[in-house]
Amino acid sequence: MNFFKNPQLVQASQKPPDLRKLLTPERISSFQMQAAGLKLFYATERVTDDILDALYSLASDRNVISQMKAMQSGERVNLIQGYESENRPALHTAMRDVFDQGKRSPIAQAAVDLAKKEIEKLRLFLPEVEKFTDIVQVGIGGSFLGPEAIYVGLEAYALQGKRAHFISNVDPDETTKVLSRLDLSKTLVIVVSKSGSTLETVTNEALVREWLREAGLNPKDHLIAVTGKGSPMDDPAKYRASFYIWDYIGGRYSVTSMVGGVLLAFTLGIETYLEFLEGAHEMDLVALEEDPQKNLPLLGALLGIWNRNFLNLPTVAVIPYSQALARFPAHLQQLDMESNGKHINKEGKLVDYPTGPIIWGEPGTNGQHSFFQSIHQGTAIVPLEIIGFKKTQYGEDQMIQGSYSQEKLLANLFAQAIALAQGQDNPNPNKVFTGNRPSSILFAEKLDPFTMGKILAYYEHKVVFQGFIWHINSFDQEGVQLGKKLATEMIKTFEEAREGKVPTYKLGEAYLKLLE
Amino acid sequence: MNFFKNPQLVQASQKPPDLRKLLTPERISSFQMQAAGLKLFYATERVTDDILDALYSLASDRNVISQMKAMQSGERVNLIQGYESENRPALHTAMRDVFDQGKRSPIAQAAVDLAKKEIEKLRLFLPEVEKFTDIVQVGIGGSFLGPEAIYVGLEAYALQGKRAHFISNVDPDETTKVLSRLDLSKTLVIVVSKSGSTLETVTNEALVREWLREAGLNPKDHLIAVTGKGSPMDDPAKYRASFYIWDYIGGRYSVTSMVGGVLLAFTLGIETYLEFLEGAHEMDLVALEEDPQKNLPLLGALLGIWNRNFLNLPTVAVIPYSQALARFPAHLQQLDMESNGKHINKEGKLVDYPTGPIIWGEPGTNGQHSFFQSIHQGTAIVPLEIIGFKKTQYGEDQMIQGSYSQEKLLANLFAQAIALAQGQDNPNPNKVFTGNRPSSILFAEKLDPFTMGKILAYYEHKVVFQGFIWHINSFDQEGVQLGKKLATEMIKTFEEAREGKVPTYKLGEAYLKLLE
Repeated sequence: MNFFKNPQLVQASQKPPDLRKLLTPERISSFQMQAAGLKLFYATERVTDDILDALYSLASDRNVISQMKAMQSGERVNLIQGYESENRPALHTAMRDVFDQGKRSPIAQAAVDLAKKEIEKLRLFLPEVEKFTDIVQVGIGGSFLGPEAIYVGLEAYALQGKRAHFISNVDPDETTKVLSRLDLSKTLVIVVSKSGSTLETVTNEALVREWLREAGLNPKDHLIAVTGKGSPMDDPAKYRASFYIWDYIGGRYSVTSMVGGVLLAFTLGIETYLEFLEGAHEMDLVALEEDPQKNLPLLGALLGIWNRNFLNLPTVAVIPYSQALARFPAHLQQLDMESNGKHINKEGKLVDYPTGPIIWGEPGTNGQHSFFQSIHQGTAIVPLEIIGFKKTQYGEDQMIQGSYSQEKLLANLFAQAIALAQGQDNPNPNKVFTGNRPSSILFAEKLDPFTMGKILAYYEHKVVFQGFIWHINSFDQEGVQLGKKLATEMIKTFEEAREGKVPTYKLGEAYLKLLE
Repeated sequence: MNFFKNPQLVQASQKPPDLRKLLTPERISSFQMQAAGLKLFYATERVTDDILDALYSLASDRNVISQMKAMQSGERVNLIQGYESENRPALHTAMRDVFDQGKRSPIAQAAVDLAKKEIEKLRLFLPEVEKFTDIVQVGIGGSFLGPEAIYVGLEAYALQGKRAHFISNVDPDETTKVLSRLDLSKTLVIVVSKSGSTLETVTNEALVREWLREAGLNPKDHLIAVTGKGSPMDDPAKYRASFYIWDYIGGRYSVTSMVGGVLLAFTLGIETYLEFLEGAHEMDLVALEEDPQKNLPLLGALLGIWNRNFLNLPTVAVIPYSQALARFPAHLQQLDMESNGKHINKEGKLVDYPTGPIIWGEPGTNGQHSFFQSIHQGTAIVPLEIIGFKKTQYGEDQMIQGSYSQEKLLANLFAQAIALAQGQDNPNPNKVFTGNRPSSILFAEKLDPFTMGKILAYYEHKVVFQGFIWHINSFDQEGVQLGKKLATEMIKTFEEAREGKVPTYKLGEAYLKLLE
């Protein structure tokens, strides 16, 4: 059965609700859900209660809550049936399930115990490195995007005099730019790679070691490893400290583990890091809610399924009205697109419906002065996932021309959702807005560490729920392998050309000739 | 006549060329164009010579070169026929046509003369502010994205001890974060708004003035205005210096004017700023080339039209293999989507074909470890516009495990284009890559100031050519007005609520109640 040919939903999608007429104060008041302090306002999505009911039955037919329980209890959800696959659990929720003695499956309990041990190691380690001021994280993909997004998100809470920096790209200019500005004698470097063999990270670690030696420092005094047991990097003799991650923590789901933990605890303090974990854990529990009226990430997932599979909208723009979340869309881009940008289902069959959309975005109000022209009047409809907060992080604000900046910010946030939904008629065709352009608003009191954890986990579970509904494996990333294989060929081609040999890889050779 | 129903192209698009078979060393060698030191490699686009010929005739039917000449000579290209519209020239090319005595139309000559005058003012002004170390640009949209992208792109060329910062968002946390880290006594602030009344910029200017006063400084000694003659900000009594821009410079096309000029000349030196302008000017001349074999931005435009209107691909990912270009995709997002995200043509009629795509992107190799799973195996096909450079900016590189970092970077760049085009068969469906996913590569020797100018202008003209082909006005942005209008309503709603009044705007009131 193709879930996305559900007759009721297909029929509804052919004449979706007309927000230009429907958007009333009553609808705004009733189309909302709250859980764990997060609110989701969805009056400006093109849904009705009937459509939502049908979407919930679709979710129920897919047993999404049982699947979420299976994931959180350590079943092997990272699997393609009948084919070689990673075939293992996805236990990122265990990384933050460290606050009580609750009953868990033996597998989850084992993962929780290991996670707690690393947190205790970290707690003991931090006083030892108090004199350092800067920390550089060397890592790419999930070892970069999540930690960067959360660090930037919570920089307002950073300890006095502590700063983080990132080296991700194999582009050597990045290493030069970052390291040339630092006092290396006061700088710690965390090298993060689960496999211990990521090309970019291994290369950049070697560059960093060279910089430290040239500065007359002993690399071992400055380097910290975050890696898997038994990886080539699992060699405590080469690092001041080593922290572990496990194969059941996917890179894009890893920021609450030591992948983000060491950097966040160093810059924000361990208590703030724990608050962040506590927020994430609270949302993990929300994702297990059987009652659909309480399961916030499931609602977010279903609104996305409606837009993607029934309204056929291929992208989603994430617009945080918060400059602190400037890098959060880039994290979600990986989280969502690497998880759900898949073309086969869990039995290895080609899917015949669209899966994960293209995720992109910049903060509001900035986006309004950039690409919002296209969002309002372009020929491609883009659903928005707006994020906002009632209060500022720093508590500094002033009244200018009769209103506070935070009021201006929020006024713009709500005005955009209304404008996109309502549209506008005008005799001048250039001033016509067709309306019916969907958006939702995720709202919280303040972007504090606790809330940051909730928002992170909200999106993780939204993505996973969508993967369950699409019946795909949201935990592997086989699609990156072919590029890696050909890059190895191409590196050899560069080496051969440099040494004056005739390259064996002819397509590569052809490109090299173009560079002459 | 609907240009996008061209029978030859429609027929070709129904069975587009199969790159899995076609990609040979010979194709790689021949599917390329060079102009002004930039190269475009397009062997991995799904085109043939016949398709390109047909696309060129489409461009010729639209008289795109005459239109480009009209634009550069100051005709009123920013126009909707028969309706109230901005009705003025788009003369950003005049901002960098400052290097010779060439013949110009009187309008262009007048614009060039004014531009030269501002550059001379800037040259005289800079020595006066030599003691300042930091410069903060307060501006949003084109007053932020272009200047930020170019500054980050050329930071390797910054003068010793000079740094730039940006405040764009009305989010008060951004101002706090940026200003709290600076020694304000050594900080200059450029306030940029053509109208002199942009909500965010006016608000942030007031905040900045307050910060300066609180630090015991005289705001006038630190503030520089970049604005239009006669705007509310055109009041030299309030600023240490004032520079002008004109209504024929659209925000998203303004980085080569004083909008970017003051910041770039302060941080990089005026000679470096002029090199950047010279590069842009060189590409402006390329865009006027009648010979299609020499007009690089026109080729880029036509490849985009093919992907958008014939292969029906709604997005474009810009992937610079250069960390220095990290913010360039955000600039292109505005440039392209605000220019071409339009639903009416130049006569005010609804278009019945797709216009500007959704532009997004992150640097490679980072993207490979993030969303490239979806690019390779997702259900939505995303054409890539890859950008690369033969040499590093800093000239610092090392051989690690047999190859240099720059070689690894470029190896990955070419490997991705090949992998996406060729695909891979495999008995395991999860290891199948369907191939035929299009990309192009814009390539140059090195990202120096001159090249940065060329790349900027290449994209400006590519966007404008596409606008000509779509027969839309690429120079206005009426689509942002409705949001501004409703934001004013919402600000009033916040004020009324704060003062205990019953808000008059009922939709706004409904949202405010949700925040309680």
